[in-house]
Amino acid sequence: MDLTDLKAAVCEANLDTVRTGLVMATFGNASGIDRNSGLVAIKPSGVPYDTMSPQDMVTVRLDGALVDNHYKPSSDLDTHLLLYRAFDGIGSVVHTHSTFATIFAQAMVPIPCFGTTHADYFRGTVPVTRHLTETEIRDSYVASTGQAIIDSFTDLDPMEIPAALVAGHGPFVWGRTPAEAAMNAHILEECARMAWYSMQLRPDLQSLPTALRDRHFLRKHGQAATYGQEEPA
Amino acid sequence: MDLTDLKAAVCEANLDTVRTGLVMATFGNASGIDRNSGLVAIKPSGVPYDTMSPQDMVTVRLDGALVDNHYKPSSDLDTHLLLYRAFDGIGSVVHTHSTFATIFAQAMVPIPCFGTTHADYFRGTVPVTRHLTETEIRDSYVASTGQAIIDSFTDLDPMEIPAALVAGHGPFVWGRTPAEAAMNAHILEECARMAWYSMQLRPDLQSLPTALRDRHFLRKHGQAATYGQEEPA
Amino acid sequence: MDLTDLKAAVCEANLDTVRTGLVMATFGNASGIDRNSGLVAIKPSGVPYDTMSPQDMVTVRLDGALVDNHYKPSSDLDTHLLLYRAFDGIGSVVHTHSTFATIFAQAMVPIPCFGTTHADYFRGTVPVTRHLTETEIRDSYVASTGQAIIDSFTDLDPMEIPAALVAGHGPFVWGRTPAEAAMNAHILEECARMAWYSMQLRPDLQSLPTALRDRHFLRKHGQAATYGQEEPA
Amino acid sequence: MDLTDLKAAVCEANLDTVRTGLVMATFGNASGIDRNSGLVAIKPSGVPYDTMSPQDMVTVRLDGALVDNHYKPSSDLDTHLLLYRAFDGIGSVVHTHSTFATIFAQAMVPIPCFGTTHADYFRGTVPVTRHLTETEIRDSYVASTGQAIIDSFTDLDPMEIPAALVAGHGPFVWGRTPAEAAMNAHILEECARMAWYSMQLRPDLQSLPTALRDRHFLRKHGQAATYGQEEPA
Repeated sequence: MDLTDLKAAVCEANLDTVRTGLVMATFGNASGIDRNSGLVAIKPSGVPYDTMSPQDMVTVRLDGALVDNHYKPSSDLDTHLLLYRAFDGIGSVVHTHSTFATIFAQAMVPIPCFGTTHADYFRGTVPVTRHLTETEIRDSYVASTGQAIIDSFTDLDPMEIPAALVAGHGPFVWGRTPAEAAMNAHILEECARMAWYSMQLRPDLQSLPTALRDRHFLRKHGQAATYGQEEPA
Repeated sequence: MDLTDLKAAVCEANLDTVRTGLVMATFGNASGIDRNSGLVAIKPSGVPYDTMSPQDMVTVRLDGALVDNHYKPSSDLDTHLLLYRAFDGIGSVVHTHSTFATIFAQAMVPIPCFGTTHADYFRGTVPVTRHLTETEIRDSYVASTGQAIIDSFTDLDPMEIPAALVAGHGPFVWGRTPAEAAMNAHILEECARMAWYSMQLRPDLQSLPTALRDRHFLRKHGQAATYGQEEPA
Repeated sequence: MDLTDLKAAVCEANLDTVRTGLVMATFGNASGIDRNSGLVAIKPSGVPYDTMSPQDMVTVRLDGALVDNHYKPSSDLDTHLLLYRAFDGIGSVVHTHSTFATIFAQAMVPIPCFGTTHADYFRGTVPVTRHLTETEIRDSYVASTGQAIIDSFTDLDPMEIPAALVAGHGPFVWGRTPAEAAMNAHILEECARMAWYSMQLRPDLQSLPTALRDRHFLRKHGQAATYGQEEPA
Repeated sequence: MDLTDLKAAVCEANLDTVRTGLVMATFGNASGIDRNSGLVAIKPSGVPYDTMSPQDMVTVRLDGALVDNHYKPSSDLDTHLLLYRAFDGIGSVVHTHSTFATIFAQAMVPIPCFGTTHADYFRGTVPVTRHLTETEIRDSYVASTGQAIIDSFTDLDPMEIPAALVAGHGPFVWGRTPAEAAMNAHILEECARMAWYSMQLRPDLQSLPTALRDRHFLRKHGQAATYGQEEPA
């Protein structure tokens, strides 16, 4: 993907989070990476969504060096970069303050897999990070946020659970492409909403049986996926 | 109804579920049957709603044999076919992941008839299916989902309760026509929403008295219906 | 107000309930009365809102006799007529199944006056009717619904509390004009919503102090009203 | 800022509260002050939002004297004036009955800082005022409302917590400009919504750690702010 296409896809993912109601004001940010060149395109900091265009996206290298500098990059840049360096398979990161995912993040409650809507996109519970230490907050807040996400995936596959809730903050979501990451952010919000209401309706509710969960996840993901119109050649 | 009209009505029912907010992404599917020819038209699998047109609907026979094969049919096809074979009076099936109906399905809580809004369309509690066995999930997931719905109607009339909640998954709804099935799906979601809030407001709430429930159901359904402008000849 | 104007105002009140999200499908109905002629205009039964026009409104006398008969009147006509006969000051009745007012009606919980939003329009708790007897449901359902509303106002002034919740059914709301009744229905829904969430947040919440409640109600209603631009001459 | 610009900015802030869903009917009001001239522009009382234009804004002096008198000013004028006199740094006041902020006001529950969304705009708990006495309600209701807000800031900095909940009534929000005050009202509503759901999900939830709260507040406010594109010269 050349840089022009990457910026267009990243801009579109940013705008998609607005269209699906996941962000208000200037909250949230989406980025994408071209793994060949190692270039990352990311939303600029604090720029209004209604006038945002692909050329406003800021380009940086994977080590954080600015490639162009018309705008300052999103203040969450370092979190994105740590995720790209730690999770090889991902091509995009989307951060929102979407209402229900943020509620779980604030309450530090992981989102269990209660139904097939969740299982179609997330193969199990979406984790919450630990709280950062005061030192981390003072000295390396944004990078430590990324590290806390990575720490919460020690026993999880980020390609199977493409999201984490940052304690007290909100969701970071990823995918192979900006469009997929934005879609995952949208689905996560709906799953969080349904989980909240399910837990109130039945406080003793257990996660979906593993067989049913995997039946749904695997029909949409991996070698044996059968959903949709794209046939293996 | 000829095949062109059937496909148009089925496409419209699919789009109606989007307009009324019952589906997001590519979730959900609607089908319809022409009882004379035995042909079923159903949404294709994983095709975006915003470019969907009547000719995209996939035609199959009641035994599942494909009549045309431009697209793959919805992955839930076998569930629809079992319902058409078991419930003689129905002409359409609509499946959604609409928020509140799915919440009850996830929590495996049937939706009681708490008010006349519910009673106008559903003559009693909307049931939840049993969970499928691991063998059913592995060997015949979609057909077994249909069978579980049918099993939950042993003592119920599917023309009086035109919906079931599949445990851990979401609602399947039906009607005599695609328009009616889509309407029933819309009403079910609103009744599920109101039931959830009613149960929180008053955890000991009982179902509507039978006399009041039947007064409402029967004024809109059956021989003695009086609602609306259509007079018996 | 001549009949043409009355029908236009009643049609507008019906459409207003759709615009403000209080009705779905063909639920709900609004009527208005010209007290000079004794003529009532009301929504026809089961007619879609999106093609509704003033000339579709059905005209009846206060005793229920049809004046024109292009359409059948709303199936709730008799409830409206009883209210006009019992409550001299009202010029319009609006019935909806709006979500939160219906939730309180289903749960048979009156809506307390918890805040000034409520007090600006309703001088105290909005009552719930008794349940009808089986005989009433069978023999005179719609008229008995009106009578149950009237019975719940034995100690209340319908000009100060312009709404009642019919048990298991939904709200009936009124006002001096169709526009005012539609507005009251809209405000009632928002007050019901806020009451529901307030009661969950603080189960022991008490009604607003009487002095504050009356300060708000009386600045908008009665001889000494000061709100808005209309100055006494 | 000259008077024409002030009226335009105040009108826009009023309309913004409608666009962001914070007000219904004629509820709510926004004002702004030009600190050089001491002139305040405020929404007229009870005028519909859909025809409101900048020249409809009413101009008064800080002591309440009317400068122009085409319309009566908002009935909440005296509350606004007290806030301008007590809080030197503010340039605009916005009052709404937005759903969740009003729910906390009705329940007299302060809104804790549970997450970074809140901390980005409010450096701690948003307070609730005391209830007014019957004498205050009778003799000086609107001014006493302002005084109760001021009393709740004895130990708080109004530039760090730019909002208060008036008990039984709703939120008053402020900012340096009308646009900022309207934005703060919008953010407050979203924070109140998320707080409500967070408290139900986890009744024992504590406020955000102070270090994390201040990290977020101070990156957007004060001398050392780093967020957005405006660089210190």
